[in-house]
Amino acid sequence: MPTPDTFTPPERVLMGPGPSNAAPEVLQAMSNPLVGHLDPAFIGMMEEIKTMLRSVFQTKNEMTFPVSGTGSAGMEFCFVNLLEPGDEVLIAINGVFGTRMADVAARCGAIVTRVESPWGQIIEPAQIQDALAQASNPKLVAVVHAETSTGVENPVAEIGKVVASSGALFLVDAVTSLGGIPVRIDEWGVDAVYSGTQKCLSCPPGLSPVSLSERAVKLATSRGRQVQSWYLDVNLLAGYWGEERVYHHTAPISMNYALHAALRLILDEGLENRWRRHQNNHLLLKAGLDAVGLTLSSQAGYQLPQLNAISVPAGVDETAVRMKLLNDFNIEVGAGLGPLKGKIWRVGLMGETSSRENVRLLLSALCQCLNECGRSVDANAALTATA
Amino acid sequence: MPTPDTFTPPERVLMGPGPSNAAPEVLQAMSNPLVGHLDPAFIGMMEEIKTMLRSVFQTKNEMTFPVSGTGSAGMEFCFVNLLEPGDEVLIAINGVFGTRMADVAARCGAIVTRVESPWGQIIEPAQIQDALAQASNPKLVAVVHAETSTGVENPVAEIGKVVASSGALFLVDAVTSLGGIPVRIDEWGVDAVYSGTQKCLSCPPGLSPVSLSERAVKLATSRGRQVQSWYLDVNLLAGYWGEERVYHHTAPISMNYALHAALRLILDEGLENRWRRHQNNHLLLKAGLDAVGLTLSSQAGYQLPQLNAISVPAGVDETAVRMKLLNDFNIEVGAGLGPLKGKIWRVGLMGETSSRENVRLLLSALCQCLNECGRSVDANAALTATA
Repeated sequence: MPTPDTFTPPERVLMGPGPSNAAPEVLQAMSNPLVGHLDPAFIGMMEEIKTMLRSVFQTKNEMTFPVSGTGSAGMEFCFVNLLEPGDEVLIAINGVFGTRMADVAARCGAIVTRVESPWGQIIEPAQIQDALAQASNPKLVAVVHAETSTGVENPVAEIGKVVASSGALFLVDAVTSLGGIPVRIDEWGVDAVYSGTQKCLSCPPGLSPVSLSERAVKLATSRGRQVQSWYLDVNLLAGYWGEERVYHHTAPISMNYALHAALRLILDEGLENRWRRHQNNHLLLKAGLDAVGLTLSSQAGYQLPQLNAISVPAGVDETAVRMKLLNDFNIEVGAGLGPLKGKIWRVGLMGETSSRENVRLLLSALCQCLNECGRSVDANAALTATA
Repeated sequence: MPTPDTFTPPERVLMGPGPSNAAPEVLQAMSNPLVGHLDPAFIGMMEEIKTMLRSVFQTKNEMTFPVSGTGSAGMEFCFVNLLEPGDEVLIAINGVFGTRMADVAARCGAIVTRVESPWGQIIEPAQIQDALAQASNPKLVAVVHAETSTGVENPVAEIGKVVASSGALFLVDAVTSLGGIPVRIDEWGVDAVYSGTQKCLSCPPGLSPVSLSERAVKLATSRGRQVQSWYLDVNLLAGYWGEERVYHHTAPISMNYALHAALRLILDEGLENRWRRHQNNHLLLKAGLDAVGLTLSSQAGYQLPQLNAISVPAGVDETAVRMKLLNDFNIEVGAGLGPLKGKIWRVGLMGETSSRENVRLLLSALCQCLNECGRSVDANAALTATA
């Protein structure tokens, strides 16, 4: 076999469900020379990552660090450490990622009660309250904060109050929310949370920041039955990320360089400023869409600024428009999944990607693609509305 | 909290148990702009990675791809997909990584028989044969090819013959062997193998190349009980890495860029040339050590060229020398683990790090450190022996 050519990726504007574009500083950090995973210099950097993650998660949790895998590994980390066979759990499901949580929990041997809403609608706190009232001994309630598959923000703060009064553990998926909209782990009473680097943190995919409350750590470290995953066992990971610095696995060095750089940029911008920027660009996109008669499919009042689910107009070929955006404009947007397949485009405005320029770039390109796909729209109207 | 400064890693010569130094082309690939994990350009690159990995593993196995985690995730991938509770497995243990395999297998509910040799000695094929004869219904035999904790190469080819005649599945840890010494998956009858990127492939840590035989795939895809890990379930991963390209998790894009670049360099060099280079530099190091009365602690005839376990001379402070190498010379070497703690230095000559220059650099620095730590050695003798 001849050796393949050097791979040179195309320059894409990443406006899909993630990864988002990474800042030049972050990409540059990835190419720094390697050091060992027990090098004092690296260990110092690990401490800074933990401290910065605590700021971004708005938590004082000691057990806050990046798991060496993508967001789904973080999800599995939370479930395998907290659940044992026979445990009763409530999972809020209104999209792909709630469904995935139920699958992961079931593989831990848990007895899963599904609390469901139609995709694109929120999970109401009352639904959780009712389910808790009917449960015999619920150990844990899990909810996705930002449902990347539908563009909906579940009311995690309100659900947290309901969970707190029940005494159950509260597990939150913050993969797409962290760094894009307010995430307040301690204030909301969250016991376990996981995120991903490639969404609003604008870092390449490959790490999953997690945080566990003291109560969750105590449970995971005092449980009778061994955690079913060696790779994700917090009892072992704590030895490496904690004070002892015992070798567990070889941390992905370069990915941690990138996360350090990305977190620095986030704190330099300021969380409040960053949340506001995401919100403003979302409103700008909505104004442009509105000017050409396009709408978001997700529930009004709960639309994620970082993930905009645009309804595909009747008669328009969803795939044709999406492929045209990629091939003619180098813009990636996401397709709908499950029941939303063919019905929505998922336009991400995450982290670095969330800018006025990108909103206008997307609007003009989308209008042109729609016109070429038989749906007449006025690009000038969209651009005027966002001027 | 003030934002930490930009992290600038020190320039280390990585002569420990991994990571090894990565080539400039590989580090450069890491800083390429991101694309989506379903981008046609990325999918094309994934195919090239699979093809190149098959060459490096010397296999025709269709199911050959990098797991999105470090080598330990690859270990867990192999065990969780092949084992179900109650399965009888034989694990060869003569170091840290055999011990770890037994731990991972037990977490899958398997009944583990340990086949042990002292650390630094090999597992004899006859030991496996005896254990198989005593086992009632052994499903799987697992062995570490290159024991990174001791510097010993287990005779995997010979053990493979014994396993083949038993009908059990054969699982091999090739984390530290792949790309440094011959690894011949098909010829040796290996059903499941995992490796790591940061050893002799000289790529940053973060991915674990794996390969499953047709028999192993059939078993994993037709088993009755669900795989306990969602993240590592080959039934789901095959949908993304296979022809369907169904979204499973977001692949670590940049890490795959780096692996592609690293595999290109390996195939350009040629596997035979690369193995010879590792062997030659190992012999050079041994000649230099011999000239100053230092010896390797691992069993003669089975010493790994890429991982040299140097016995710490009596009266020398192991840690002091190792810290001096790091602080005064920017050379990282590894400490001993478990029963070998304080007794050996682990000197890696892996991938890019395996060069004549590095051997001489290490010898001169080590001699100076030994002299400063109260053990008089003649650096000139070591350098003359390696001239």
